[in-house]
Amino acid sequence: MREDELLRELFRYFKESPRIIKGPGDDCGVLKSVPGKDILLTSDSFIEGKHFTHELLSLREVGYKAGAAALSDIAAMGGKPVAALVNLNLPERVIPRVQEIYDGLNEVFSKFCTSIVGGNVEKTDKLELHVFVMGEVIQEKAIYRDGARPGDLLAITGDLGRPQGFLTAYHKGLTKGFKWWVNDMREKFARPTPRIEEMEKIRNEIEIHAAIDISDGLGIDSYRMARASGVEMLFYAEKLPINESVKHLSSKLEIKDWFLAVESGEEYELLIAFPASEKEKLERHKLPLTIIGEVREDKPGSYIMADGMKIDLSRRGWDALK
Amino acid sequence: MREDELLRELFRYFKESPRIIKGPGDDCGVLKSVPGKDILLTSDSFIEGKHFTHELLSLREVGYKAGAAALSDIAAMGGKPVAALVNLNLPERVIPRVQEIYDGLNEVFSKFCTSIVGGNVEKTDKLELHVFVMGEVIQEKAIYRDGARPGDLLAITGDLGRPQGFLTAYHKGLTKGFKWWVNDMREKFARPTPRIEEMEKIRNEIEIHAAIDISDGLGIDSYRMARASGVEMLFYAEKLPINESVKHLSSKLEIKDWFLAVESGEEYELLIAFPASEKEKLERHKLPLTIIGEVREDKPGSYIMADGMKIDLSRRGWDALK
Repeated sequence: MREDELLRELFRYFKESPRIIKGPGDDCGVLKSVPGKDILLTSDSFIEGKHFTHELLSLREVGYKAGAAALSDIAAMGGKPVAALVNLNLPERVIPRVQEIYDGLNEVFSKFCTSIVGGNVEKTDKLELHVFVMGEVIQEKAIYRDGARPGDLLAITGDLGRPQGFLTAYHKGLTKGFKWWVNDMREKFARPTPRIEEMEKIRNEIEIHAAIDISDGLGIDSYRMARASGVEMLFYAEKLPINESVKHLSSKLEIKDWFLAVESGEEYELLIAFPASEKEKLERHKLPLTIIGEVREDKPGSYIMADGMKIDLSRRGWDALK
Repeated sequence: MREDELLRELFRYFKESPRIIKGPGDDCGVLKSVPGKDILLTSDSFIEGKHFTHELLSLREVGYKAGAAALSDIAAMGGKPVAALVNLNLPERVIPRVQEIYDGLNEVFSKFCTSIVGGNVEKTDKLELHVFVMGEVIQEKAIYRDGARPGDLLAITGDLGRPQGFLTAYHKGLTKGFKWWVNDMREKFARPTPRIEEMEKIRNEIEIHAAIDISDGLGIDSYRMARASGVEMLFYAEKLPINESVKHLSSKLEIKDWFLAVESGEEYELLIAFPASEKEKLERHKLPLTIIGEVREDKPGSYIMADGMKIDLSRRGWDALK
């Protein structure tokens, strides 16, 4: 197949939107700008053998997950996505099945009204996706990771531990055959939800001081937030929202469930710091958040209280250079 | 080295600008939007073994060229770049020298007032850069590739053939030792100029119907413009602005110089279609353009008149899937 033939296949996935003046097929995608908004830019990489294998994810799931990861960064700033570009490195064997990747990208981008307006394809040995997303946030209302203050409470969207639980079960040879708990863990591993709608609801109801996408794990990402804010963060193991499937695996392997939860990367949950005075609203509006810790005045660090010990979390999670 | 340590090294390259609210280091880069502009989005890939080798380019040149390629797409739309994101796949051996890549990126981005506001790093086997650029163009004034009309003239910025000439000389073992013509060819191969300033000058003086960045070669990219516009393009071999170094190589190898010129990728020159009535202004304002052909009413195609023959150009150039 020639490059232009493949690109024409992919252009069929383009979704029009009132914001888009020119979709894929020219030197750039062209969008209308809107007044009263700031622009958000983010990118993510999704690489065969590093972030996924074909044994662990279908091509459709590869597309979905790569898209979800980039959208999650937009959610963490309190914004909404608008448009995306995808650079695809395609091995020969994947070229005839590239539509499956686009089906996955399309699934997650359509859900959040994001159009793919361009990108690049190359023939390579390994499958790789580099996803770039442009989003928007109300002017001067972007939420940063450096605003956490002593006295704030820390809360998390969704639940923790399933992606790491699934990988652990896989490496122990426990994922063969149908098991409810493997299924539950795999569901989030393969199709995480970028918390765009949740963040919109939350920021409409309470004041937020800081937020971060914990894509590398609660441990390392909470430390990043603590360091940026110049504060200490303290979490409580018994407060973490750990899914039943992860608890089941932990007891089976005789490990602590919180251990899986803090090291679990690719969660795409948002860690949020907010004034303690907002706690009552959180309950009243049934916000999709669980309070898991607090911010303290001390030298930057992130710790968890578990079994009566204060344990350093700053290196627990995914490091891209390891 | 840990990911966060490397990222802190790279953040030192960040250039502040009045447009940028938040540079690298958060989940997204944040920019002010400005009224009266449309937004341009583009991405490019630059992959070891495919677009470059360490024998052919220094790390600094790899950075420069990857940046220039993405900026060239912004130039083709008649716009100006604002901000960039860079996804870096780094082999272990390159990690300690990553600053050299950033020196090159910085060289070309600084020249065109473009700040790197984010990106991603991964440790991999091959060096890869995926560069995303956001730019802007005056509202409703983006220039597309589909606007060429019968009767238009076709003109090109800069000169043609040097990148392909350099690669040809290299594969023939002719690049060892100092030779003026190898040097001249290598200069453009390693440090092409995105035609942002040239395009601004041109569009200020004449009406433009269509433009395209000929990064895959005049042959294939002119065909893309012809197909998008539904017209035939006819070039004249004797009109092509071919550098003396390329002429020297051609006569040495006894090949046609225009052959190198039309197949030469990574030129980053702009092919522009404009009304014939503007020709006089082109000369009067000394615009940096050479007229090389014309647009005709016929079925979509791109051809060159050379030695009395009309030769198909539609497959002459770089195909990413070959």
